Amino acid sequence: MAVYTHLGAGDFAALIAEYDVGELVSAKGIAEGVSNSNWLIETTGSAGALDSNNKPQTRFILTMYERRIELGDLPFFLALLDHLSAAGSPVPRTIHDRSGGASRLVDGKAVAMIEFLPGVSIDNPSEAQANAVGRALAGIHLASADFIASRTNDLRPDDWKTLFDQCGDHLGDIDRDLPAAVDRYMPQFRAEWPEHLPRGTIHADLFPDNVLMLGNRVSGLIDFYFACTDIIAYDLAVTHAAWCFDKGGRVFRPEIGKALMAGYETVRPLSDAERSAMPLLAQGAAMRFAATRSFDWINTPGDALVERKDPVDFIRRLEFYSQNGRSIFPSPAG
Amino acid sequence: MAVYTHLGAGDFAALIAEYDVGELVSAKGIAEGVSNSNWLIETTGSAGALDSNNKPQTRFILTMYERRIELGDLPFFLALLDHLSAAGSPVPRTIHDRSGGASRLVDGKAVAMIEFLPGVSIDNPSEAQANAVGRALAGIHLASADFIASRTNDLRPDDWKTLFDQCGDHLGDIDRDLPAAVDRYMPQFRAEWPEHLPRGTIHADLFPDNVLMLGNRVSGLIDFYFACTDIIAYDLAVTHAAWCFDKGGRVFRPEIGKALMAGYETVRPLSDAERSAMPLLAQGAAMRFAATRSFDWINTPGDALVERKDPVDFIRRLEFYSQNGRSIFPSPAG
Repeated sequence: MAVYTHLGAGDFAALIAEYDVGELVSAKGIAEGVSNSNWLIETTGSAGALDSNNKPQTRFILTMYERRIELGDLPFFLALLDHLSAAGSPVPRTIHDRSGGASRLVDGKAVAMIEFLPGVSIDNPSEAQANAVGRALAGIHLASADFIASRTNDLRPDDWKTLFDQCGDHLGDIDRDLPAAVDRYMPQFRAEWPEHLPRGTIHADLFPDNVLMLGNRVSGLIDFYFACTDIIAYDLAVTHAAWCFDKGGRVFRPEIGKALMAGYETVRPLSDAERSAMPLLAQGAAMRFAATRSFDWINTPGDALVERKDPVDFIRRLEFYSQNGRSIFPSPAG
Repeated sequence: MAVYTHLGAGDFAALIAEYDVGELVSAKGIAEGVSNSNWLIETTGSAGALDSNNKPQTRFILTMYERRIELGDLPFFLALLDHLSAAGSPVPRTIHDRSGGASRLVDGKAVAMIEFLPGVSIDNPSEAQANAVGRALAGIHLASADFIASRTNDLRPDDWKTLFDQCGDHLGDIDRDLPAAVDRYMPQFRAEWPEHLPRGTIHADLFPDNVLMLGNRVSGLIDFYFACTDIIAYDLAVTHAAWCFDKGGRVFRPEIGKALMAGYETVRPLSDAERSAMPLLAQGAAMRFAATRSFDWINTPGDALVERKDPVDFIRRLEFYSQNGRSIFPSPAG
């Protein structure tokens, strides 16, 4: 989490001049984003960019996409922000340049400017906060129902398998029991993944880091760079796995799980088929993060900039869901 | 340049509650500072912290000092900010907590909250900007004349020598010609350093990074963590070496040098003795950064978080000052 590219005052001023946002007042590199650079920009504001209260917006997040691979998907991500914010979801709006473009190139790298949203990320959510997160997630699922663009999820069960395979013998170096866990749980996802469930646009990475809150209110859902078109209930499963345990995945917090589910279903009740699939979806969500974390663990030098995250934290969640899934997510019949 | 410590929403809220600044609205880790962590904090504001226009201040920089060694000097740095801002210099004011303290401890580490100042750092200054920087530097020299606290400069000629000595044989690994340059220039500083010149509180590190500008106006002088009590004209020499060359030290920009000196002398004219000493002081300023950069180069892994800066960039400046110092800084007689 760092700023990978140096932009000088002249670069910022030239870039800002392409937008109808007033004059540059401040630009601070912020320590967010793993593969892109981000700056918090302040301007004098103008009628060209109004906030939700119709006052001139003066603060923005400028993102530079450092990896070429992301360029192709950028229009999807930015159009999604535009769609959701227009529908009233608490996501940052894209600020378009004077010619209407949602992104620009600076030194061959794509940059985009989005609205700055207030709020702080919560480490230990209260029930009220978990309820609000559930509502907000359901809100973007409803609001994206008429979003026509689509993007394939490139982290589906077959892809988890590929990532684990690429770890090879090193998987056991991370943790002695990891290869056996992968062999034990992986087949069910590829055989039984509930492809028949309702699909839509999902965030797919709604960890606490990616939710801004003011008290008990969700003020921002951010970082849509894993957003894609996939099983809607899987997004709830990812959010459940991300919010309802301690960091190491050792302690499940049942009251947070209940509040999250209740909040979600207040806005978008699950169908019977979705409810039945939750235990498997939650195991799959845990496996997905175990897979990417394993790959990243092996491919990230121990002394690198980016903190390595232990995949076993999510194997523990997987095992918990495997053993307790039916009681956490009661089936429609029971 | 990173955020070394994770603080959660609860940590921020608990800390903010110790200050009369309103409720927490946002906290973003910012990519500034080499040995400390910094966050840009936004609050709802309160009458407890007013800005220079007597409006509630809503934005602050929170700094956590990660290295124990800095703790002892922290009161000096913070008192200096209070003194200079009270005198009208464009430096961030320290925000004191409800009990009047300028710093607090969080998990055993000192933190301090200072005013956020607008402005951006300039890469390629214009003459008008260099003039403004000279005036601002002279301004803090005058404003600190009645600042009673003092701090020894721990980077004086003998200390440069110690740093080079600690590099040992590795010095030649950085650049083949570096050891000879050190041997050639180092003795004059230890023999002829103008200790008799007027002393006072100096910034000692006024690189473009540490100056915020809005157009041609200096809106902020920041990062006083090298500030100390030493030869006043040496501060001007440091600033000259930092502002009047391209990054590599290959190209001197005479018009920028002239504008900086003229701006400075508009506010605080140099004495004849100071003027005479400028060529040696400028060489010393260059040597000081060559020394710390050499030490850091050898003691920073190539793949570390912190960008390594080439000491040779400052040996080139030193050689330039050695050859041209008398024409850049005309002596009083000539």
